[in-house]
Amino acid sequence: MLEIPRSTRQAADFSALATHCSNARPIPISSFIERQNRLAQTLHSLGASAYIAEPGANAAYYANLSSTTWHLSERPLLLLITPSEESGVITGKVAILTPSFEATRARLLPIPSNSEIAYPEWPEDANPYKIAVSAISSLQGSKDAPRKIFIDGAARNFIVDGLQEAAGQRVHVASAPVEIKRLRERKTEEELEIMKCVNEVTLLAIRAVRKQLYIGIKESEAKTLIRSALEAAGLISLDSIVLFGPDAALPHGSGTDRELQKKDYVLIDCGGELHGYHSDVTRTFALEDSDIPQGHLDIWGLVFDAQSAAIAAAYNGTVTADVDKAARLTIELEGFGQHFTHRLGHGIGLEVHESPYLRGGSDDIILTGHAFSDEPGVYIEGQVGVRLEDCFYIDQDGSAVFLTAGVGGQAGSPWEP
Amino acid sequence: MLEIPRSTRQAADFSALATHCSNARPIPISSFIERQNRLAQTLHSLGASAYIAEPGANAAYYANLSSTTWHLSERPLLLLITPSEESGVITGKVAILTPSFEATRARLLPIPSNSEIAYPEWPEDANPYKIAVSAISSLQGSKDAPRKIFIDGAARNFIVDGLQEAAGQRVHVASAPVEIKRLRERKTEEELEIMKCVNEVTLLAIRAVRKQLYIGIKESEAKTLIRSALEAAGLISLDSIVLFGPDAALPHGSGTDRELQKKDYVLIDCGGELHGYHSDVTRTFALEDSDIPQGHLDIWGLVFDAQSAAIAAAYNGTVTADVDKAARLTIELEGFGQHFTHRLGHGIGLEVHESPYLRGGSDDIILTGHAFSDEPGVYIEGQVGVRLEDCFYIDQDGSAVFLTAGVGGQAGSPWEP
Repeated sequence: MLEIPRSTRQAADFSALATHCSNARPIPISSFIERQNRLAQTLHSLGASAYIAEPGANAAYYANLSSTTWHLSERPLLLLITPSEESGVITGKVAILTPSFEATRARLLPIPSNSEIAYPEWPEDANPYKIAVSAISSLQGSKDAPRKIFIDGAARNFIVDGLQEAAGQRVHVASAPVEIKRLRERKTEEELEIMKCVNEVTLLAIRAVRKQLYIGIKESEAKTLIRSALEAAGLISLDSIVLFGPDAALPHGSGTDRELQKKDYVLIDCGGELHGYHSDVTRTFALEDSDIPQGHLDIWGLVFDAQSAAIAAAYNGTVTADVDKAARLTIELEGFGQHFTHRLGHGIGLEVHESPYLRGGSDDIILTGHAFSDEPGVYIEGQVGVRLEDCFYIDQDGSAVFLTAGVGGQAGSPWEP
Repeated sequence: MLEIPRSTRQAADFSALATHCSNARPIPISSFIERQNRLAQTLHSLGASAYIAEPGANAAYYANLSSTTWHLSERPLLLLITPSEESGVITGKVAILTPSFEATRARLLPIPSNSEIAYPEWPEDANPYKIAVSAISSLQGSKDAPRKIFIDGAARNFIVDGLQEAAGQRVHVASAPVEIKRLRERKTEEELEIMKCVNEVTLLAIRAVRKQLYIGIKESEAKTLIRSALEAAGLISLDSIVLFGPDAALPHGSGTDRELQKKDYVLIDCGGELHGYHSDVTRTFALEDSDIPQGHLDIWGLVFDAQSAAIAAAYNGTVTADVDKAARLTIELEGFGQHFTHRLGHGIGLEVHESPYLRGGSDDIILTGHAFSDEPGVYIEGQVGVRLEDCFYIDQDGSAVFLTAGVGGQAGSPWEP
């Protein structure tokens, strides 16, 4: 077949992707309030006085305060949530510790709350952590020091040190335990609706890009296409890896800009963000006129079987390590065990990678609402790399469902991504 | 004077800035080795077995490992430096803890070292922190558990937790103390050469941009100019704030895109990075045909005096709070104390803002090699904002010298930035 020179090809049109998620709705304010209240109830049951987070994924979950909304600096701006009890009902109270000279800007942050938000300020010559600790007491309507304070695991070390020092040794300052981490890990229907849509449209983008590829195209050109497609789909915070043939044998990529050959697979691993939630999809595929060696086709089938074995093993109550093992055993049985060099998958949601993880050595329990990537791979350096990735969630019945199911779920074959 | 329509103006040419820093040299490998050895000697004197940092400013200082070089993820990649004693001489040994499947990429990191670097790997199903702790023992040629481990204050909370748990309660895992922080805080001649150049060229960029401004230009247009000028100067990681008239009364900016009026000051606060080191310069100035109210000219003079009072108060051995106070008293004496809403300044180097800080309530001691911004301001909401900022360092004689001295240092007047 003759190569069509690049200049005569039509510019790719991905506008059909634009409407796929037009019905997806951002998380409503009422859900943020619910999250704050559930956190408060959990804090109460654990005997804790407060939860503290820096701007980031946890603060985004509870208070719409991401690190894009407020850039981290050496001056702490902290979200504080405390449990408040009235007539036996526990609700969350919200405060934002802010540098005094930034207070105007802090008060403009769109933080949902059912009651008035407190904005304790720390002047430049004061210790911000002492002010945080006394803000917790006054939020709780108490003059006593707090008993136990839980902190976002992603907070920076100096924040934790400062809080512990200000609170004194009689106060237990510690990373938030699993009971709190699970609140965000387990997704609600409304979160899953967004996550389905963003994962579906990501897969549609890969399929649309495949139609634009040809033998001889460069990795960098294909990468431009996938980014255009994801942008056309309305996603932000794009992530994309495009690797051809043996380049795909390094899971996180190489520095070459290979031209696609007939014997090469195309590996596209990409994702983006919609209303704060991320997608992550990988396809390894062939073009119509590719000529993939039989051994590589066999590997594709093996990775597909491993992906299927993993989702079949995942349900409410399973240990995460067992799901990893289901995929790994499939690959080991065919003698390719040493070429499956990474864990099976990661939690996904407000972060592309978040707890819990599907990996050996982990005894986390899978529960309804958990969402994970299922992404086995076989990588033989200098030869070939195959990875297939769809994310799944555990539905209310306890079984695992691919987030891409609405557009067909798993790949059908190397020619049907 | 008639307004010249924008379209007839010449495109700004900032190419003259390109050569200003052409003689500045990146930090040589020998200096990284020296830093590692000084760290090792300090660890030894403190009875500590290791220093651990995530990719970031501290790892960049000791091992050329910034968070741009290696993106932070949930999988720890850590720099470990341990003291090694041979014939009474203490030197630093370097290891990089890496995820196994990323080991190829980790080994390609350009990490300077005088001896072989160890790359302890953690497989996906293992506890990375246990592997880090045993790597410390084997770097030290010992089977004993480490005694004391110091960690980068900017490391994430879950890393510190993981290390403490893996090391056990008999090992003291703590943030690096002031003796270690000072190693990076106190700049050498070769660091100061870069810092002088990057600060000088930043001031030259502001002056060059001033010549392109006119009554009626928008803040966004002026911002485009300053970014072009800094880029032309060869800087990366640009930061810029451009505020006209009353917009400058919020120190970190407002959301308007004001057109410059005759009665408005222009405030430009900007900086960039050269060979890893940052600049930070602010000028508040008038154009030739500006018509600044007398009250605002008086405020400019007052801020200038405060900036002068601060640098006059800074020398080897001074307490940081006293330098802040020198500027603050100057402004308070004229009755504008409540309008100087932020600390006087911050340390600067591999980070734009780094310890120590020039602020009330701080008892850090200023030492030779320390470098700070000196940036008093007066902000009256709805009316005016004036800030003047030059960075200075403490020279070997113990006195303070502006990093911008080579191009004139402090502003001369509102018409001579």
